[in-house]
Amino acid sequence: MKIALFQMRACAGDVEANLAKIEDAAQRAVKDLADLLIMPELAVPGYGAGDRMRALADTADGPQIRRLQAISMKIGIPIIAGFAEKAGDTLYNSAVFVEKGRKSIVYRKSHLYGPYEKSHFEACTPETVLFDIKGQRCGMLICYDVEFPENVRRLAQAGADLVLVPTALPAGDYGSFIARTLVPTRAFENQVAIAYANHAGVDDLFSYQGLSVIVAPDGTLLAEAGDKDEELLYAEVDFDRYQQSKQENNYLGDL
Amino acid sequence: MKIALFQMRACAGDVEANLAKIEDAAQRAVKDLADLLIMPELAVPGYGAGDRMRALADTADGPQIRRLQAISMKIGIPIIAGFAEKAGDTLYNSAVFVEKGRKSIVYRKSHLYGPYEKSHFEACTPETVLFDIKGQRCGMLICYDVEFPENVRRLAQAGADLVLVPTALPAGDYGSFIARTLVPTRAFENQVAIAYANHAGVDDLFSYQGLSVIVAPDGTLLAEAGDKDEELLYAEVDFDRYQQSKQENNYLGDL
Repeated sequence: MKIALFQMRACAGDVEANLAKIEDAAQRAVKDLADLLIMPELAVPGYGAGDRMRALADTADGPQIRRLQAISMKIGIPIIAGFAEKAGDTLYNSAVFVEKGRKSIVYRKSHLYGPYEKSHFEACTPETVLFDIKGQRCGMLICYDVEFPENVRRLAQAGADLVLVPTALPAGDYGSFIARTLVPTRAFENQVAIAYANHAGVDDLFSYQGLSVIVAPDGTLLAEAGDKDEELLYAEVDFDRYQQSKQENNYLGDL
Repeated sequence: MKIALFQMRACAGDVEANLAKIEDAAQRAVKDLADLLIMPELAVPGYGAGDRMRALADTADGPQIRRLQAISMKIGIPIIAGFAEKAGDTLYNSAVFVEKGRKSIVYRKSHLYGPYEKSHFEACTPETVLFDIKGQRCGMLICYDVEFPENVRRLAQAGADLVLVPTALPAGDYGSFIARTLVPTRAFENQVAIAYANHAGVDDLFSYQGLSVIVAPDGTLLAEAGDKDEELLYAEVDFDRYQQSKQENNYLGDL
């Protein structure tokens, strides 16, 4: 399975510009024969949309999701992207999976980070949302969720082979540790692959760490983005290659 | 708190030789003003004692533990060391904490690795055993136990500041990842310090990875041993220094 990951400089507050970036990334990814495209957290409104977040939110079957479905259908690649989800009066920090001919699937972030997220969103009870891409069981988490071993374990125990993580990791003292040390450990301790798609650069409110990664089930960093620029990152994950690692590191069996 | 960690070349099957090594390490550690000494898994009988394991096992208040207590009392340093524990007909892979004037405390390994350990020992139900050294709450795990996030989480939620891990990590494809990536993640995701004390070199049965580490609560590697030789490793852990990290990475609070 060839994973495409778009480390994005989102335009905070500009849904049209961000959808255009997603469409462009999807076109490039398909040209390079990728099997799926993963975008960062809140890729559609921009993580730093701030007070505009509620106005830029959409329902799980609203026009934004239909646009993503249309992009996926036209270009022919499954897309995972973060958006602000409106459900009645409640706002969730969500990610959607869209693919031609399939019903879209939404995951809502369970662990909100810091006052910014807590002021805009409600946390959702941790949910196990699984779907198949090219015969591999995939689950979704969002950003801070993946820093809790309990969340990845839950997906792995439910059968996930690959965990897709739109993120908005801010630049700071712990960013490199989280991307390069913690995320590979999450993969290794569950023997699952992880794609961790971050923003890069700055917007009005935040500076992002970049350092997006795609990690193999044995913890190997298959692809790593830089810490500054927009970047379309690829990794080929051959899930059959990790049988020996799964035998030697049988954490799910020995737990 | 100054931690001394002895990365040991144990003499498999020779309890007297290993106790002499422990005494020698304790003497050097005290001279260098360490506050505690941690030794590897099964340091007393030697991890590779094989079929001699049962004959070399001792009860939790038997002569081996009394010898360790006498060493600790004479030299004046708390010691954590692995031994084979006999309890009736059952053999546990255990670690003991001894300190002058205190009752010894035993922890039994809950997650046994592979056929060698499973043929010699019984796994114990995961236990939360805590004790204080110089005002810091300490817990014990043994080797494979620490590779499961659930075990470190349990100790951290019970209030541990420092997790002491005698280990016998074999040389192999995953050794470096476990010591240098997974163990620091365990520290960071719980904001606890970890001392991970391995064997080095070879015995009749195994080749060991070395790479013992002492990790700060923010995941920083404070001290790292090499991959071949016996080594007395030190790190000063100033627990007050990690308040900012605990605030920014408040996993126990946000879980």
